[in-house]
This record gives sequence, structure tokens and C-alpha cells, in this order.
Amino acid sequence: MTYCVGLRVAEGLVLLADTQTNAGLDNISRFTKMFTFEQPGERVLALLTAGNLSITQGVIARLRYGIQRGAKDSGHPTIMSVESMFEVAQLVGAEMKRMQSENREAIVQQGTSADASILLAGQRKGGKHRLFLIYSAGNFIQATDDTPYFQLGEHKYGKPILDRIITPKSSLEESMKAVFVSMDSTLRSNLSVGMPLDLAVIEKDALTFRIRRRIERDDPRFAAISQSWSKAIRKGFEELPTFFEG
Amino acid sequence: MTYCVGLRVAEGLVLLADTQTNAGLDNISRFTKMFTFEQPGERVLALLTAGNLSITQGVIARLRYGIQRGAKDSGHPTIMSVESMFEVAQLVGAEMKRMQSENREAIVQQGTSADASILLAGQRKGGKHRLFLIYSAGNFIQATDDTPYFQLGEHKYGKPILDRIITPKSSLEESMKAVFVSMDSTLRSNLSVGMPLDLAVIEKDALTFRIRRRIERDDPRFAAISQSWSKAIRKGFEELPTFFEG
Repeated sequence: MTYCVGLRVAEGLVLLADTQTNAGLDNISRFTKMFTFEQPGERVLALLTAGNLSITQGVIARLRYGIQRGAKDSGHPTIMSVESMFEVAQLVGAEMKRMQSENREAIVQQGTSADASILLAGQRKGGKHRLFLIYSAGNFIQATDDTPYFQLGEHKYGKPILDRIITPKSSLEESMKAVFVSMDSTLRSNLSVGMPLDLAVIEKDALTFRIRRRIERDDPRFAAISQSWSKAIRKGFEELPTFFEG
Repeated sequence: MTYCVGLRVAEGLVLLADTQTNAGLDNISRFTKMFTFEQPGERVLALLTAGNLSITQGVIARLRYGIQRGAKDSGHPTIMSVESMFEVAQLVGAEMKRMQSENREAIVQQGTSADASILLAGQRKGGKHRLFLIYSAGNFIQATDDTPYFQLGEHKYGKPILDRIITPKSSLEESMKAVFVSMDSTLRSNLSVGMPLDLAVIEKDALTFRIRRRIERDDPRFAAISQSWSKAIRKGFEELPTFFEG
């Protein structure tokens, strides 16, 4: 399985993905699920993928190929050249649709799911920072102030904390803590989601990554957050009012 | 959907169930999912049900009918008369199997799932307090010290807190708080799980219910726990160490 989460708050975008994939519980591998594209001062994009790995890798490969082609042929639209984030989402959706139409039938015949989904986050110069969720059919939805986050994959374990904490006014720092705690809860409850993690933070209007790095299993800051959270949960739990009929 | 949770700790058994059922999002009803049987000083049983309501209601009706029949014919084995909790689980499993074999095919032909599952908790005089999970096929497993809880239905939202807090040494008071917080997280994240709740607490060797009551939407103690937990989560969250690279 996979757990990816993306938040869109007024201050920017925060994205976190695990790196574990599995074809059955006895066939576990590590693949990055976060792909980033950056032209500092012009455009910054991050894509997080879930679902059938051959489909999502194909989408990413074709988007990259499109960028190479666009470098030679300026008439060729690419995710780094189109005019709006909406059009970027359309391009990603179009490649998803193409991968599905070429491969889905054969994959499903093998008894495997071809479903896939992609989070797209980013900003282009002159536009707003945006977060999209692109489905297998190539259609997509956009995060709004009512729902400032999207999740992919094993989303339920880590949802309650996001529902409690995150609003569009949450700071980037709060948003990072929220995705860490959300991931931490998922890691504890589901074996098929695993470290290391990939983190990206995009500050509004900076048009570059504020943070883009891998968090390894022994990362002291992630461990500190995880331990502090465990302690806070235990303490909060101990301090709950009693229920027994008196 | 449904959320039911049962804990088995050294001090006893704690059970909590929601009461909302739905046949589609536009057809929501309230049905109790907790059924209790008690002969004080001799035996105390609680059954929590999930899945196809016609199946689980049929199982409960037949178990009750069996008790009536057993009152007239002492040779007829019933959940209130058999020698061990294991045999009680076998009787529940047998009624489940019978309901499935009589109804499953017709239900599935209508495009509806016939799956159902039951938590069985209780103690008979001279035995240990036990917790079983009975599946659609009538087979069952028993909670042990390694896994001191079972959940039915919409289990993922409320699992992280149980994984963090509950051990076989948790007190009944702690166990009650844990099931409340687990339910509270589920209620917040899933519309199809709803108040009121049914709570049962069985103290080890008491052979009667310590608590058996309905918790209504406006229950002040449940609200106090819910609010205290929200505050603790927010406070714990605010006190997390920062992650930003310094």
C-alpha cells in the first residue's frame, strides 16, 4: 500500500509520501512516490503517486519525455510550460487516461487492479499555489478552503488528526507536524506503509522548494516528533475525565 | 456502516457499539448492535453485530429462541447453558452458518453483501472472561494478550489510539476511555457511524454487568471526554518539536 498526503494552506503546500510498494505481502519494495519539477522563480511542481506502479511510472515517464520534447519544440505543451496549474492537471490527467486506455484491459485480465491516482501540487509564476487530485479516469478535483487536504492510499488511520487540526489558516510549520503525525499513526497501524519518507514544502509565491528531502528511518527530528506525540497522547489520555458512574 | 469495539483486559471486558445502519447514504436507520444476556452470578454475555442486518438479526433471534426452548427442554444446548465460552462461540457460529446457508445466495443475487460478523464477550461461572470474533463462515478467533481487542466495521479511524494505549494490563477505566476516544475519532471522520452508543462493561468474575447503558448524543460525560481529548490533542500538537531546518 501507500500513504501520501498533501495539504494546501494559505502559506503554501506541504507534501509527504511513504516509499513502500508491495505486490502481495511477501513482495515488498521501495520506490519513491514523489516526483518534483522545478524552475526556480518560474514554476515548482510536486507529484505524489499511488496505485498500480506500472501505470504511475508510465505517467511520470511520459511527462518527463514531454518536457524533453518541449525543450526542442516550443510549440509542444508540457507541465513546465502550460499557462496555468489547471492546464498542468489536464496534462497529467491526459497521460493518465492514455496509460489506462493502453494498459488497463491487459492488467485487469491478469487479476490486478490498474487503478492509480496522483496528487499534483505546485505554483506557476503569476498564479496561485494549488493542489489537485487526479483519478484513474484522468478527471480531477482541486483542494479548496473547505477541504484543504487530499490523501492517497491507506488514508483512514491518518485522517482523524488532519480533521482535528488542519484549517486553511494553519501555518506551514503546523502543516508539517500534522502530516508527520498523520503518517506516524498510519505507520504504526499498517505494516504495508513504510519508511523512509519523502517530504516537500512549497512556500506560497517562493516558486521553489523550501524543503525537498528524504526522511530516513533514523531521522532524529522525525523521531522526536513521533516520541513527543506518543507522550502527549498518553498524557492527554491519562488526564481524561472519568466515566464510571459515581 | 458500523463501528463496534471490544477490549479484553485482565480486569474484564469493555464493549462499545454505535447504532447507525444504512442501506445507502439516503437510507439511514437506528438499530441496536449490542445484545446482552445475563444470569447474575452464573453467566454474562454480550454480542455486538456488524454487516448484513437481516443475517445478524436472524442469528440473535435464533439464539433467543434457543434459550426459550432450552427452558422447556434441558437437553437443548443454549448460550446460557453450555459448559464453556468456547461452546457459546460455537453455538453463535453455528447459527451464523445456518443463516448464511439459508439466505446468502438469494441476498448476493440481489447485489447485496451477506457478510456479517459478531463479537462475543462474556464469562461463565468457573471460567475465564473471554472475547471472540465470529466470522460469516461461522469460524471464530479469540482475543489473547498479544491482541487484546477486536473491532467490527469501520475500524481504521479508531485503531491508532487502541494500538498506542491498550495492553492487557490496562484498567477498566482506561479501557473505557480508550473505546470512547476510538469511537470519537471514528464519529468525526465517518458520517455513516453515529450516536447514540451502547456501552457494556463486565468486571472479571463479577458475572454481571458493571455497566450496561445507552449513551445519548447529549451525554455530558461522553461530551466531557470528547472535549478533553480534543484539547489534549491540540495542546500536544502545539508542543511538538519543530521540524524546519534551522
